[in-house]
Amino acid sequence: MLVAMQNLDLPQPYLVYVGDIADPVYAKTAFGIRDWARDKCVGEFGRDGALRLGMSRLAPAEARARGAKSVVIGVAPIGGAIAPNWIPDLEECLAAGLDIVSGMHRPLSEIVALRDVAEAHGRRLIDVRRPPKNLPIATGRKRQGKRLLTVGSDCALGKKYTALVLAREFVARGLAADFRATGQTGIMIAGAGIPIDAVVSDFVAGAAEVLTPDADPGHWDVIEGQGSLVHPAYAGVSLGLLHGSQPDVLVFCHKVGRTRVYGLTTEFPIPPLREIIDLNLALARRTNPNVRCAGVSLNTSELNDVDAENALREAETHLAMPCADPLRSGRRLNMLVQACLD
Amino acid sequence: MLVAMQNLDLPQPYLVYVGDIADPVYAKTAFGIRDWARDKCVGEFGRDGALRLGMSRLAPAEARARGAKSVVIGVAPIGGAIAPNWIPDLEECLAAGLDIVSGMHRPLSEIVALRDVAEAHGRRLIDVRRPPKNLPIATGRKRQGKRLLTVGSDCALGKKYTALVLAREFVARGLAADFRATGQTGIMIAGAGIPIDAVVSDFVAGAAEVLTPDADPGHWDVIEGQGSLVHPAYAGVSLGLLHGSQPDVLVFCHKVGRTRVYGLTTEFPIPPLREIIDLNLALARRTNPNVRCAGVSLNTSELNDVDAENALREAETHLAMPCADPLRSGRRLNMLVQACLD
Repeated sequence: MLVAMQNLDLPQPYLVYVGDIADPVYAKTAFGIRDWARDKCVGEFGRDGALRLGMSRLAPAEARARGAKSVVIGVAPIGGAIAPNWIPDLEECLAAGLDIVSGMHRPLSEIVALRDVAEAHGRRLIDVRRPPKNLPIATGRKRQGKRLLTVGSDCALGKKYTALVLAREFVARGLAADFRATGQTGIMIAGAGIPIDAVVSDFVAGAAEVLTPDADPGHWDVIEGQGSLVHPAYAGVSLGLLHGSQPDVLVFCHKVGRTRVYGLTTEFPIPPLREIIDLNLALARRTNPNVRCAGVSLNTSELNDVDAENALREAETHLAMPCADPLRSGRRLNMLVQACLD
Repeated sequence: MLVAMQNLDLPQPYLVYVGDIADPVYAKTAFGIRDWARDKCVGEFGRDGALRLGMSRLAPAEARARGAKSVVIGVAPIGGAIAPNWIPDLEECLAAGLDIVSGMHRPLSEIVALRDVAEAHGRRLIDVRRPPKNLPIATGRKRQGKRLLTVGSDCALGKKYTALVLAREFVARGLAADFRATGQTGIMIAGAGIPIDAVVSDFVAGAAEVLTPDADPGHWDVIEGQGSLVHPAYAGVSLGLLHGSQPDVLVFCHKVGRTRVYGLTTEFPIPPLREIIDLNLALARRTNPNVRCAGVSLNTSELNDVDAENALREAETHLAMPCADPLRSGRRLNMLVQACLD
């Protein structure tokens, strides 16, 4: 198990690279790292005209001098490939003594120019989307320690951010807690993790077991959820993660106004939220009969404060459990955190 | 989609290789091929003392002269590796002009001796456990044609055999039907398929969509199920396959006397069968609201005829649907087949 995790301990601190990307939509990873791992970054680097993250703009050699150990590619353009005009920048990073960390589908080592330069400088090309080798089949054995998993009504609506906020709040209350990353951005933020959707299906639950090993009885693993049990493409990933995580606590994530599964041409309405919560609980009981849903994380990012509060109150009443937008701190978030710990 | 399927069209007919294995427990693939694809075999080949399959025993050159295009490794010893003393036999097959087809975890090309000899003779090393590249993410789009999926209470209790029998019975009734293989033995029998448990989790439902493409409205795909929704290690595989298959009909498979999940150290009781059936139906409705469970396939292989009939009658009464052991032909099997087609 140690071997599996060691593979994904990333060299930090980072220099964050944004290429020539100007549209923030394609820079979610860069913003995620800035917002959640700023203390692990020495600065940013990009071509003229690229967007800015608000950190120091540093050339690779300068970043290395300030302690950077790797450059992370923080952008993913349409098609998910590294643009040819980024290659010289990345070669400069390698020459300056930085490893390259990428979350793209295509392995860095397939880019011959990068592979050769990395070899020449003794640097590493690290693909966080490549899962560790030798993951085991799940055993279902109950592990010590407490586990919280964020689940949801769909993809891309806040499961990672919710887990990050809850882990931060747990630590702020003096608890031992680790954010456990299951996707590429989360892994870059945490500096470790397993890209669960890249794991061969037979080993998904086993990967979740490795990701959240035995711990002290009072320790919390706060696990980044993936997909949704009602997503026609990804439900299997979600179920493997649910079974392997053996969560004691679920936090259910939804986005205001999301009425159909995102990104599919075929229309799949989101079922009633209560049904999705009950489905998650029913299936989670297979590996942890004591699982409960502590509350709801509602993404209200497109609403003003008044409308957001109305939406939160409505969801709270409708679902009869604490409801907060984790990116709006205050009373509601405190109640959600407390409900997780009760 | 064509590309994906072409990858797995296997060179037939086969010579079936059993190495030095004497214990039938380790020769399930060989027996499966003999029982279900005898017309695709020219004979068998093995070392002295190995078990016999009851086909002509042929040296590789002789098999090639009789039309064999490949040798299939029909045994999987503990550990799942190719024994060193099999290598000379397999080299002889390559030299005789046969490709090698393997269902083992470790790719054949990692065995340097075999790789070199295959290259020298222009022969292929084919790992059926390696899924096709470029599988798509599932779309959820409803496809034309009819689909039946075998699901079950656990692994290793008859989902493949049930699908094989049903496909055979459909064809015997003059229907257009294809057995769709999702595991290595099934793929060797069918000569095509996708090893679903070896697919990266994000693409499992997409693989099932590729495996069972649009077809004539009256055509049946009879799909080999994998795992179980109540298996703590494999449920995610089962759910992805269920969603991507969009089955119109489920046939539920169980083995008499199986009361706990097989092969796990931790005890996981099999839940009441009705619950498992309802869970499959509830989740399958996400991609096909008209799905129904047509009946039960009960593995009674360890019972005598009288006890088997009693067990079948009991299950039929208890679950209120047709119940047959597909390896015992007759009235019950006819009723199950009819219920699938109604």
